[in-house]
Amino acid sequence: MGLCSFIRKVRQIRTQQPNIPTTFGENQLVHTILRRRSVRKFLEHDIEDEEMALILEAGRLAPSTVNMQTWSFGVFTERTWRETFGRSIPYGAKRAVMVLGDITRIKEATDIFPDVPLIAYTVSMINASLAAMNMTVMAEGLGIGTVMLSDTGKTGFFSAAYLKKTLQLPPGIYPLMTVVFGYPASRNLPMPPKFNIEDITFCGLYKKTERAKIRAWFSLMEAGYKASNPFSSFKSKLKYYRDNLNRAERELEDVVLGEREKM
Amino acid sequence: MGLCSFIRKVRQIRTQQPNIPTTFGENQLVHTILRRRSVRKFLEHDIEDEEMALILEAGRLAPSTVNMQTWSFGVFTERTWRETFGRSIPYGAKRAVMVLGDITRIKEATDIFPDVPLIAYTVSMINASLAAMNMTVMAEGLGIGTVMLSDTGKTGFFSAAYLKKTLQLPPGIYPLMTVVFGYPASRNLPMPPKFNIEDITFCGLYKKTERAKIRAWFSLMEAGYKASNPFSSFKSKLKYYRDNLNRAERELEDVVLGEREKM
Repeated sequence: MGLCSFIRKVRQIRTQQPNIPTTFGENQLVHTILRRRSVRKFLEHDIEDEEMALILEAGRLAPSTVNMQTWSFGVFTERTWRETFGRSIPYGAKRAVMVLGDITRIKEATDIFPDVPLIAYTVSMINASLAAMNMTVMAEGLGIGTVMLSDTGKTGFFSAAYLKKTLQLPPGIYPLMTVVFGYPASRNLPMPPKFNIEDITFCGLYKKTERAKIRAWFSLMEAGYKASNPFSSFKSKLKYYRDNLNRAERELEDVVLGEREKM
Repeated sequence: MGLCSFIRKVRQIRTQQPNIPTTFGENQLVHTILRRRSVRKFLEHDIEDEEMALILEAGRLAPSTVNMQTWSFGVFTERTWRETFGRSIPYGAKRAVMVLGDITRIKEATDIFPDVPLIAYTVSMINASLAAMNMTVMAEGLGIGTVMLSDTGKTGFFSAAYLKKTLQLPPGIYPLMTVVFGYPASRNLPMPPKFNIEDITFCGLYKKTERAKIRAWFSLMEAGYKASNPFSSFKSKLKYYRDNLNRAERELEDVVLGEREKM
């Protein structure tokens, strides 16, 4: 990509804004939700336990299929994270909540999941994701920044086998992601390139996104990555993922489908 | 369960409240998030298109793995829902957004998902769930009630084959759930029985929830169900699920793992 094209694309990324009709301009919650950005640089300032408790309360009270609450939350400070994993919380965040799908409680209470590993996995992953998002919005409302991690620092489903072993997770528990928390070093983070609403919605029958739109988006992703990582490229990041995907897939197969016998 | 025990349990459910420290008593967003309840009875009043657009914007701007936005949203009014599915939106809600995991765009742009169906499914399911939760919180902030459906009225992953066929979904798209929207008929819905925070969290190594806690929760679930459905029982509802789970599992296997060849 030429320099002019690169500059144009970076400018395009920097000027993207959420669409907020003026009618809702004063609604604080609308702004909080739409201006949330993933934060990867945090201040030294720690988070109060009282605030973390409120964030966890948002996880506890998230909606779930038949109110089954198929989740567990591993709650860490920098010290307990280091004791458990032998390293720091990624990005210098001050607190971390590992979010896991967990069907052990519902299996203990009922025989509702006999031999349906994909359903059990699906139910618990959906619910745990809802809890993770609810915690993230709560943090945002308290002025606390977050980023959801599923790979960086072996924090989620991409490192299923490692986490099962390190945390001694019994069958029926699926590591999903870690949400890390801290006060953001900057409040002015640009929005990463998003598809337009018409590219990701359909009315009635499903409609594929136009190829040109997909190419334009991907090209912005490349430019944005280059702008933040001048000595790397988005392609090389994707290559890293691709190389690790087959390992991650085998581990996930074992965790999700291999539990048929063990449960 | 005896009558006295039943009455005590129903009272226990009705008096459950979110834990909000007084310090945060004035924070509107804290209340909005923690007082959200799933709504199953709606007023006749329709929702403005402008508000639906804002709700979809919360879905569009939700976080996603490597900003891949692996989701699509099917957007329905009562009329278009009826045209597509030949029946009303469940619970008399006025609008519906079907949330689907969708890796077709990322497959078009890159070769990052070669033959890793479980990873592709996991990534898209997590991201789509995050979008669903973000839309739900946005609706709540606008005074609009929601409920997430994955079974009722064949609206989600529990009816994967039916939805693939009816909506003509190509490979790489996973029906997840439908969020339905409307103005709630009542603002005073009780909180369904929730586990305490200490039952669903751990610090350091994973810790199983005590059996007694699980039994106590299940017993509240039974009482709560009985209170809202005097002529049915929670056990019979679970039996309905169990009978349908093997069919749903086979369909999901086909949709998730059977796409290896087709993609």
